[in-house]
This record gives sequence, C-alpha cells and structure tokens, in this order.
Amino acid sequence: MMHQLAAGIDIGGTNTRFGLVDKNGKIHFKDSLLTTDFPDPKDLVNAVSEKILSFSNPKQQTTNFKLLGVGIGAPNGNYLKGTIEFAPNLKWKGIIPLAKHFNEKLNVPALLTNDAKAAALGEMQFGGAKGMKDFIFITLGTGLGSGILANGELIYGHDGFAGELGHTIIIQHGRQCGCGRKGCLEQYCSATGIVKTYFDILKSENPHATDELDTSIINAKYIYEQALSGNEAAFYAFNYTGELLGYALANSVTYTSPEAIFLSGGLAQAGELIFNPTILSFEKNLLPIYKHKNKIKILPSSLQEDDAAILGAASLIWQNPKP
Amino acid sequence: MMHQLAAGIDIGGTNTRFGLVDKNGKIHFKDSLLTTDFPDPKDLVNAVSEKILSFSNPKQQTTNFKLLGVGIGAPNGNYLKGTIEFAPNLKWKGIIPLAKHFNEKLNVPALLTNDAKAAALGEMQFGGAKGMKDFIFITLGTGLGSGILANGELIYGHDGFAGELGHTIIIQHGRQCGCGRKGCLEQYCSATGIVKTYFDILKSENPHATDELDTSIINAKYIYEQALSGNEAAFYAFNYTGELLGYALANSVTYTSPEAIFLSGGLAQAGELIFNPTILSFEKNLLPIYKHKNKIKILPSSLQEDDAAILGAASLIWQNPKP
Repeated sequence: MMHQLAAGIDIGGTNTRFGLVDKNGKIHFKDSLLTTDFPDPKDLVNAVSEKILSFSNPKQQTTNFKLLGVGIGAPNGNYLKGTIEFAPNLKWKGIIPLAKHFNEKLNVPALLTNDAKAAALGEMQFGGAKGMKDFIFITLGTGLGSGILANGELIYGHDGFAGELGHTIIIQHGRQCGCGRKGCLEQYCSATGIVKTYFDILKSENPHATDELDTSIINAKYIYEQALSGNEAAFYAFNYTGELLGYALANSVTYTSPEAIFLSGGLAQAGELIFNPTILSFEKNLLPIYKHKNKIKILPSSLQEDDAAILGAASLIWQNPKP
Repeated sequence: MMHQLAAGIDIGGTNTRFGLVDKNGKIHFKDSLLTTDFPDPKDLVNAVSEKILSFSNPKQQTTNFKLLGVGIGAPNGNYLKGTIEFAPNLKWKGIIPLAKHFNEKLNVPALLTNDAKAAALGEMQFGGAKGMKDFIFITLGTGLGSGILANGELIYGHDGFAGELGHTIIIQHGRQCGCGRKGCLEQYCSATGIVKTYFDILKSENPHATDELDTSIINAKYIYEQALSGNEAAFYAFNYTGELLGYALANSVTYTSPEAIFLSGGLAQAGELIFNPTILSFEKNLLPIYKHKNKIKILPSSLQEDDAAILGAASLIWQNPKP
C-alpha cells in the first residue's frame, strides 16, 4: 500500500525534529538532528531530506510512500515568504529562504510558518480544536507565542507577522523586553517571566534574599516544585502570572471572540497551579457579553508536548493537501 | 434598464437611514425615518420596506429595479443570528430578529451586523480599503466601535461578537465603563472619553474649574473648537486621547498585523489634532518587526460620514451578491 505522508519539521535553536505524518495525525517515523551542527542551513536541509527519503518501515510494510509536501515550523518564520527572518535564537543570520531550499531539494510543496502558528494548526487538525473555527493558541515557553484562528483560517496579517501576543504591552513602563519596549506580556507570562516574578517576590520580602541563592538553578520547573512543596513565594508567583495572563486573554477575546483558548508549552504543564488563577482572572476581566451561553473555554493543548511541533508543521500540508 | 440594487439600512438610536446602492457604491435613493416613532420594530420594517418598494427615480429612468437584498447595520447587531441583542441605545428590549422581519416582508436575503462592522465592509467595498485583505476599522463616536478584517473576511468570532476593541482594558482600575468594568478604551478614546479627559485636565489645574461652567455645552466639537482657538487644555485633551489611542492600536497590530487602520466617526473629523498624536504614539509603541518595509498606515475613512453607514450596510449584500 502506498502511504500518503507529509513531513513535519520543527526547527529549534538546539534541535531540529522531524517526522512523517499521515492524514490522521499518526507519526510514521521521527528523528532529530542538532541544528547547531549545520552552520549552513542548506546542509541541514540536505541532511533532513536524506533521512526522510531513506525512511522505510519494514514493520508497517511502508517501504514506499508518496511525500505530499514539507511543512516547517521555525522561530521568526514568515509564512507568506517561506523564510526565517532574523531569528535571535538561531545561528543563521538574516533572512533564510528555508521553504525554497526544501522545495528545490525534494521537489514537493514546502510551507513554513512560525512555531506557535504551526502548533495552532496542529491543534485544529489533530487535537482539541478539531471542528473549531475561532480559537487562540498560546505557547508558554521561553517566550509567549501565539496563533490566532478566525473563520477557520490562521491569521497571518499583511506581512505574515500577525499573532505576536507575547509583545502586547500589558504593563505600561513595565519590565524591559528583548524587543526594546517595556511591559510586554511575555516578560510576565512565560517560563522566563515567572522566574523574574519569583525573584521580585523574594526581594520584596528581603532585598538580599537572592544574594545567597544559586539563581542558575531557578527555572519554571524549580518554582513549580517549590510551589507544590508549600513554598508561598513560588505559589504566589504562579498566581501573579495567571492573574496577568487571564487579564491579557480577556482583552484578546475582544478581538476575535474565540470559542476556546489553548495553553501549551512548559509553563502550561504546571496544570492547576497556572490554569486556576488564569481562569479566575479571565472570568473577572471578561466583557459581560462574552459570559452568556457560549462560555469561552481555557484548555490545555491535547497534543503530546513532544509531538505537537512535528504534527503542527505537517498540518501546514494537511490543511491543503495537493495529492 | 433594470438596475440591480442592494438596500442599506442604518439603524440608530434616533434615526433610521436607508438607501439603495448599486455595485459601484452609488446611492440611487436615500431617506430616513425616526427610529423612536416605532415602538414595535415590525412597524419600522414595514415603513422602511414601503419606502424602498415605492422608489422610482424619473430622472434616471429607474422606474424598475431588482432588489438583491437588504443589509442592516445596527448597534449590538449579531451577524450570525441576524438579531439586535440588548441594545442599550434602542427602545426595543431583548432580542429583535430584524433580519428575519425584513426577509419576510421583502422576500429577499437580509443580513445584519453591528454598525462598525458594516462600516468596515463599506470601506473595503467602496472606500480606501479596496483591495486590502487585512485592516482594522475604528469608529470614534459616542463609544469606540471596530471591525477587523483578516484574510479578506470580517472576523465575527464564534458568537458574532468579535471586534469589541472599545472594551479592551487599556488602564487597569481606570475610568468606570458602562459595561461594568474599569479602564475600557472607549472611556478614553471616543467623543465621550475626550470630554471626560478635558474635565480631568481642567480640574487638575483648578479643582473648582468646572463649577461655573455650563458643562452641558461641552462636547467633542466644543473641545475641538477650543483647541483650534488656542486653548491649551483642549489641545492637551486631544494629545492625551491620541497617545492612548496610538498605544492601543500598536497593541492591536500584534493580533492581526493589518495593512492599515482606518479612523472614522465624529472624533476622527478633528483631523491632525487627533491623527498627529495618535500616529506619534502608535509608532513609539509599535513592535520593531512591524516598522520594516511595509509601514502600517493610520488613515481617515474615505467615505462621506453621512453615507458610510448606508454604504456599509449595503455592502453586506454586495460582498456576496446572489442575483
């Protein structure tokens, strides 16, 4: 039997993970390479392509498959141009036409978008957003990424850079952001943001609280474990993060009135610790007309964290298969 | 010659204005009735329908025309249901199925949306947004209304209530809003908002400043005239309004990355007095990636204020003509 498969490729600062995905979201093969091993992006394209082409799975007797296309999720990915543009977390400088490279190498359609938008598509194609036409997908990782679906389509905007909710200014004159502005949402609601909040809380109790701490071990996971073991400052750090996130999400609703908002990424793994204060603040700040019958749900992503990026990238192709 | 025309009906708290519009945006006939004369919405539907049907313009020899459909713009209009829902500015209470009433009376398709969304469609069909797929349309009237276009389509959201930017909370714990929350954008950036700002400025200079003033004459137009004649407080009121509006619009860009943002309504008629501080603050608060080549434009609506609502309502039909 000839399988029809789409390649999903997730380019990260450290790892490039990829797999072959069928129309039901089953991953038939996956592998990874170190992104940093390839100073020239064309060499990564060649290496990934060879691995994909050499795939044959004797167990499933899929020695033969038809590759429908290549979907790529990447930081600072521009869907409209198929390029990665000035990504601060990658060693490749400037504008990289990665979709074009894959298209030339494999002679199939290649589509690229940013990692959060790809994950949003994956959630719609294979996850909890199946059948939804209007939803927002948020990734709470090092930064805060987002993908917004309206009328059943991803919003790219006129330049491909829609959905940068992490850079909504949430507190005027707030924390300095890497973008050059102050008070951006991702400075508060992300794995990085909660660490800053935790330090702020410790210092507000005792200005020298962090002097003796090995701050290098303090990350979102550490704060999560501290909160579980009864550390009040850690618990309050989650509360404050959720309070701001819920407030920001309530504002988001005034734009696209989504059916649901999905939270994914490291910080979302904290479960109730982050979801409870987020939902509380969301409901408190929501415009009353959105509180009627069709209650807007705040949900965890239903895709396995490890596979979400590959599925999302592949769904770029499965959204519009051209067999 | 048999003209094909769409009816555009603009329901306001005081007046209901309507006209017949051809596919080029030419209004072949217009008239109005007092909304308040019709305690029963069905009676208004009958009166408007009779005026529309009796239309014959001897000058243009259009004694005969084919009515393609009826488009309606109304406060609190729900496109998905064709209803006006709990509109605070209308005497009709509860949920009014106005599109159904027109459909039954005239036996043509009838579509209804809120007034700002209708105006956004009009701008795309007949005005400065022709050819744009991604833009935001803002009305600065008594409140702040908005219509968001992405991927060439209006965003309605899962419940029809997307595009309520006037109720984005812009200042936490700020001015009390009629919606029950505090700090909503329309409490600052609207004809009503600038009056509050003007009073705040006067009182900050002298707590008794408004004691002797006939505050009933102070509206946005008055402040505009004061600003033109050199009144500093009035000038600063426009500056402050523009500063907050530019900041809010810069945040809006992170959602849909529009090609342009259109400002319409009474306050937008103030021209440079409102556009200059808005653009200045917009550029200052904009995420750097949006400042590259494709500069996002802040523009006045190109439609005549008086006709915009009728054209917008008619464009609901012209968007998808079913002749």
